[in-house]
Amino acid sequence: MKTVQIPIIRYKDNELIAVNDTLAVEEPLEISLLYEKEGVFHQKNISITMRTPGNDVHLALGFLFTEGILSSFSQIDNIHQISENQIIIKIKKGFSLNLSNIERHFYTSSSCGVCGKSSIEAIQTLKDGYVSYYGLKISKEIILTFNEQVRKAQIIFESTGGLHASALFSASGNFIHLAEDVGRHNALDKLIGIFFSQNELPLTEHILFLSGRASFELIQKAAMAEIPIICALGAPSSLAVKLAGETNTTLIGFVKANSFNIYTGAERII
Amino acid sequence: MKTVQIPIIRYKDNELIAVNDTLAVEEPLEISLLYEKEGVFHQKNISITMRTPGNDVHLALGFLFTEGILSSFSQIDNIHQISENQIIIKIKKGFSLNLSNIERHFYTSSSCGVCGKSSIEAIQTLKDGYVSYYGLKISKEIILTFNEQVRKAQIIFESTGGLHASALFSASGNFIHLAEDVGRHNALDKLIGIFFSQNELPLTEHILFLSGRASFELIQKAAMAEIPIICALGAPSSLAVKLAGETNTTLIGFVKANSFNIYTGAERII
Repeated sequence: MKTVQIPIIRYKDNELIAVNDTLAVEEPLEISLLYEKEGVFHQKNISITMRTPGNDVHLALGFLFTEGILSSFSQIDNIHQISENQIIIKIKKGFSLNLSNIERHFYTSSSCGVCGKSSIEAIQTLKDGYVSYYGLKISKEIILTFNEQVRKAQIIFESTGGLHASALFSASGNFIHLAEDVGRHNALDKLIGIFFSQNELPLTEHILFLSGRASFELIQKAAMAEIPIICALGAPSSLAVKLAGETNTTLIGFVKANSFNIYTGAERII
Repeated sequence: MKTVQIPIIRYKDNELIAVNDTLAVEEPLEISLLYEKEGVFHQKNISITMRTPGNDVHLALGFLFTEGILSSFSQIDNIHQISENQIIIKIKKGFSLNLSNIERHFYTSSSCGVCGKSSIEAIQTLKDGYVSYYGLKISKEIILTFNEQVRKAQIIFESTGGLHASALFSASGNFIHLAEDVGRHNALDKLIGIFFSQNELPLTEHILFLSGRASFELIQKAAMAEIPIICALGAPSSLAVKLAGETNTTLIGFVKANSFNIYTGAERII
């Protein structure tokens, strides 16, 4: 994970001191698709995301999967990171990329500007029918360990205080993987992208831990990967709770060392 | 500010209790422009943002200003909130909306999907030449009061733990206004939108306080409103520091009751 050292001035207890500070790097990543249609190659810029450099391929793959643009790693011919901030993903010949479908299936965030095709409908779920039943159950005691396990894994967080993390755990509470980024959506895309690239989706036997708040977009991305249980360090929004209910996701918030709140799907907690 | 009460299950110290919890509401807002071109009316959907309902008109106006789409309130004929989640802003006849300019001047965030016109260049500054000198100076002692002043003002934050705040202060440290939202960019757009609608931009004599981290996008939006000093409760990203330097903005992070870090523009602190 990329950080930079810069000289700053620290004010503390009425004293100014020149010190070095570590910052999380934030840079734009452009994700493009290259595909063949009627014998002609087309390149389409899909997204620019402000991200922390590192695991860019996983970020691109996770983004394309969770936004409903790609459904399997087998649809990809090859992946080129043509510069530090540009990734081109070549789609296999013969796989028809439904561009009208792509354009229907997106939404813009508050930090996104002008999109020609925006509409309220476009914000709705990307997947036709989320899996409505997951047998996974976990114990209360395991949930209480997540915070500390993630804190230990999240070394960079200690040094910059500027990164969001998404972590994956097994049902028995074992830490599996962690992804970090200045953007919380990127952290989750990076995490899901790893499993997408290994053909290990869906993640129906796993628990997702979010280091911050649980927003609508994060629940939607997790539902795309069919993750049945989400634990967040912070609060969920109202729409996050609604979507968790609709997708039969267990949503837990304010996870601390001795307490948490269950918003939906309490039947999975034993 | 809109919140909802929902029944949840709270686990604490080995006990499960059914309680009511307050959530920040998150819903999509669609912002569209209605304009006349060669005698024909056109409607263009500009953005869908996931926001906390409330001050929607200010949010729309702030967004259109900070994204470089509108530069003055006088360009607006009228504003219709046609439903809870849709705002249409009618542009005055004779004001030519430069759509190619609009499409060049946007970027997508990690939570944004498919945008036809995305490019790395589009992420660059929206304003031709930020004001490069601001005479404003503030004292260290005033900065130390911001956190507590905002905490007092931010009543809803206490109840949900789920909202970001942007607050404006005078150079003498007086609290002027606060805007909140589930999205940090929305909170800043709502704040700037108020002053845009009152023809009170630029804000060259003011200090912006951010309740969380300082990202590139927030520095860019503040620079559009020519705010010379930004104080954030959290860490800045590397690109935020770079942009603050380029726009001659004083950027202060980790503002606490007895300490803070100065990243750029230390000459404004006395």
